[in-house]
Amino acid sequence: MKGPHDITETNGPAPAGPFTPSEREAVYRAIRLRRDVRGQFRPDPIDPAQLRRLLQAAHDAPSVGLSQPWNFILIRDPAVRRSLHDAFQAANAEAAELFPGRKALYSALKLEGILESPVNLCITCDRTRGGTHILGRTHDAATDLYSTVCAVQNLWLAARAEGIGVGWVSIFRQDDLRRLLHLPDHVVPVAYLCIGHVTELYEEPELMARGWADRLPLDDLIFEDAWNRPGTA
Amino acid sequence: MKGPHDITETNGPAPAGPFTPSEREAVYRAIRLRRDVRGQFRPDPIDPAQLRRLLQAAHDAPSVGLSQPWNFILIRDPAVRRSLHDAFQAANAEAAELFPGRKALYSALKLEGILESPVNLCITCDRTRGGTHILGRTHDAATDLYSTVCAVQNLWLAARAEGIGVGWVSIFRQDDLRRLLHLPDHVVPVAYLCIGHVTELYEEPELMARGWADRLPLDDLIFEDAWNRPGTA
Repeated sequence: MKGPHDITETNGPAPAGPFTPSEREAVYRAIRLRRDVRGQFRPDPIDPAQLRRLLQAAHDAPSVGLSQPWNFILIRDPAVRRSLHDAFQAANAEAAELFPGRKALYSALKLEGILESPVNLCITCDRTRGGTHILGRTHDAATDLYSTVCAVQNLWLAARAEGIGVGWVSIFRQDDLRRLLHLPDHVVPVAYLCIGHVTELYEEPELMARGWADRLPLDDLIFEDAWNRPGTA
Repeated sequence: MKGPHDITETNGPAPAGPFTPSEREAVYRAIRLRRDVRGQFRPDPIDPAQLRRLLQAAHDAPSVGLSQPWNFILIRDPAVRRSLHDAFQAANAEAAELFPGRKALYSALKLEGILESPVNLCITCDRTRGGTHILGRTHDAATDLYSTVCAVQNLWLAARAEGIGVGWVSIFRQDDLRRLLHLPDHVVPVAYLCIGHVTELYEEPELMARGWADRLPLDDLIFEDAWNRPGTA
């Protein structure tokens, strides 16, 4: 659907105005309805054109100095997936011990969909991409990792609009991820994602629905001009 | 505009299907047309309801273990802004020296809009939020920083849909940011953002338009099952 705010994406400066109300609402809906999916994956494959759009959305992310430090490792081989699932289980058993008062609840949570989802994707950050000095990274070395996370979030929101679920699995020993995906030392595995169609989504974060944690009030998180100085917006 | 895919956001599982084609395209447009704004800010204020929507979009981001480690420090005081602008200039002079072969081009780039934009926002990460052990952060301590970046990217995309420009300024000595914003040691300043209405946007990243860097071909960044093993999508 073309609206009055559509612009020609060729060259020169482009209009900067707002989207139409319905377009704006679509962006907010993707943000609001995005969920971290663990247990609702369907096994049917992702259409290759859809997957390509998701990767393009990630690649359209901002990056410090336009360094584009990301790579996209698609994990399709069942044997590799089984190894990663084993690695998750080992790490997750260690993790459960860290929540002694809530171990039963922790262990009842499903925290990954590595084998059930049709494709896994590791988004990495190459810390040498673009050379020794990167514009904008001169005073904060972590900004390349931050760029990579922007790519992850772009993909996640695009996936919600496509009706595709994404789950971020972060419970791996970093050495296991490196070994199983043959990552060289200068490459950081930022996000390991399970991607697939889903039967349904939680309406609120699953950890809320299951009583693990609660939303914080936004007002408590807003300061003005300095840390801890109450602000309003 | 309500479409056939609208869902009731009250309780229980929600439909997980795709957005309508026009809604989906709006999400992709926000992703594709988002720009890092430095020099096109207009001084007129942001509507408070709009600013609140942007902060809510940030707060709707995913966070490891639902820890929500972010805070939002709005910087409105002109004196504080001037101090931050001075801090930027000091760091940027250091940065320019790191690009000896391209110093003239570097110095000609406008890399911030601290004084011209009507509001600045520092999004921080409280590394103690949620306690000692956080579900999902047990094996990768950086995941709280990653959550905070997801909040930044949500805000950035929502701002594009609102017709509001956002510029991420990363050229500060970290100690200056901490001192000027009174940040305690356990709080990391992840993103310093300039926010305001804009006269126009670049159609491609400004660093491309100005000959600083180029887009990498997406195909070169896709691997399959391991690092450096060519993949397609």
